[in-house]
Amino acid sequence: MEASKVALLVVGQEILTGGVIDVNIAHTAKKFYDKGVILAKVEIVPDKIDDIAEAVKRLSTTYDYLITSGGIGPTHDDVTVEGVAKALGQQVIKHSYLETVLSRHYKGATLTAAQSRMAMVPAEAELLISTSPSDDYFLPQVYVKNIYLLPGLPKLYSHYLEHIMPVFTGVPLLHDEISIKGIETKLTAALNRSVHKFPQVRFGSYPSFEPGKPDSFMVKITFEAPNEASLADAKEFFLEQLSQDLSVIS
Amino acid sequence: MEASKVALLVVGQEILTGGVIDVNIAHTAKKFYDKGVILAKVEIVPDKIDDIAEAVKRLSTTYDYLITSGGIGPTHDDVTVEGVAKALGQQVIKHSYLETVLSRHYKGATLTAAQSRMAMVPAEAELLISTSPSDDYFLPQVYVKNIYLLPGLPKLYSHYLEHIMPVFTGVPLLHDEISIKGIETKLTAALNRSVHKFPQVRFGSYPSFEPGKPDSFMVKITFEAPNEASLADAKEFFLEQLSQDLSVIS
Repeated sequence: MEASKVALLVVGQEILTGGVIDVNIAHTAKKFYDKGVILAKVEIVPDKIDDIAEAVKRLSTTYDYLITSGGIGPTHDDVTVEGVAKALGQQVIKHSYLETVLSRHYKGATLTAAQSRMAMVPAEAELLISTSPSDDYFLPQVYVKNIYLLPGLPKLYSHYLEHIMPVFTGVPLLHDEISIKGIETKLTAALNRSVHKFPQVRFGSYPSFEPGKPDSFMVKITFEAPNEASLADAKEFFLEQLSQDLSVIS
Repeated sequence: MEASKVALLVVGQEILTGGVIDVNIAHTAKKFYDKGVILAKVEIVPDKIDDIAEAVKRLSTTYDYLITSGGIGPTHDDVTVEGVAKALGQQVIKHSYLETVLSRHYKGATLTAAQSRMAMVPAEAELLISTSPSDDYFLPQVYVKNIYLLPGLPKLYSHYLEHIMPVFTGVPLLHDEISIKGIETKLTAALNRSVHKFPQVRFGSYPSFEPGKPDSFMVKITFEAPNEASLADAKEFFLEQLSQDLSVIS
């Protein structure tokens, strides 16, 4: 099983102008990493149809899946649906089932123009209906081809992300790490040789020190691999390559 | 004077895998907004030369300037310089002045391969030398054409961003806002009419409520414009358009 490569497109002028700090990117990164799904690319665009369309076209064809975050509410600057439709060369249509759900939610009253906006979808869109009786979020998840349109509000975003997680396949990585006394540049040669020898292993190098204490320099080296054998081999090889004047603490 | 349109490219596998939460995006957004510089696009890529090169090529030709964050340290996964050079079709060369600065910093000792890596730059790179005597960050800012290569560590990133801010021109916006009692969809029509009438004004719509209190629905409408006249006109027009069953609180 191959891990899915997924791109995330955050739509939101308010993030680019500093009015709102995005948290959906970090949330997605953590969720995906734990399952072994690959977050391959993230982009943030303003609420402009052409900017969204350009990114959607490129990302949905480059990666296995694309998630969009934001821009699907009722206001004038919610143009993600239009952007996605434009990228795919599809019309925007009113989805009758979504309209029914909205009418029910708004107690049968005639929908305002703004409310019925939320029933608009790209022509070939499909719905992911929740089967959970405890699901109190009233609108089904809209997707079209390999593109999943999620709301931007973090509470809603994480709720709908949970719904679509089964779509993505993942290969969780195994971890190991060691701490070394010394400065990072002293072990870079050993690290580089290890990286070249073990292309399937991911190495991380995280230096730290206490200000004013030259003896406090430390480096944490992390190893991540799809199986125990390559994890152990990579660690052993790296330790062999380390120069003698560095000491491994743990 | 036109406001500069700037793209930000964050290079960092650690952000895509949730190991580190990016703060440079929000910092840049706030700094730019205050000066009236436009943060037009943000992308996050893994530490892969081809991914960096693709994004650099596209962003540096689409926008006035491109800032890169991260990937310029001494370790194996610091490949931003290679990515930028590839995007521009330039060789990576050793910069003799940077090498001198590094040697001085490392007390005249022969540079390790890892240390001298930080003297590597795209062939046509130039340096922005700080004239501040209090500047205790030892490496000059590297840039090539309209691309500024900044370190990813937030403390360093914000320091170097401060240095390059004079490069960008900005037109700060004026603000106004009102709070309205009611639900957002009731004022969307008025908002949409206003948006169409005042293309040079930016409108924001931010609903809020206390759970379980149907009477607590509120919407904050924000206005942003380049001058006092259009700010006042837009607010006045919007208030005229509001339906009678909504009350303006402030």
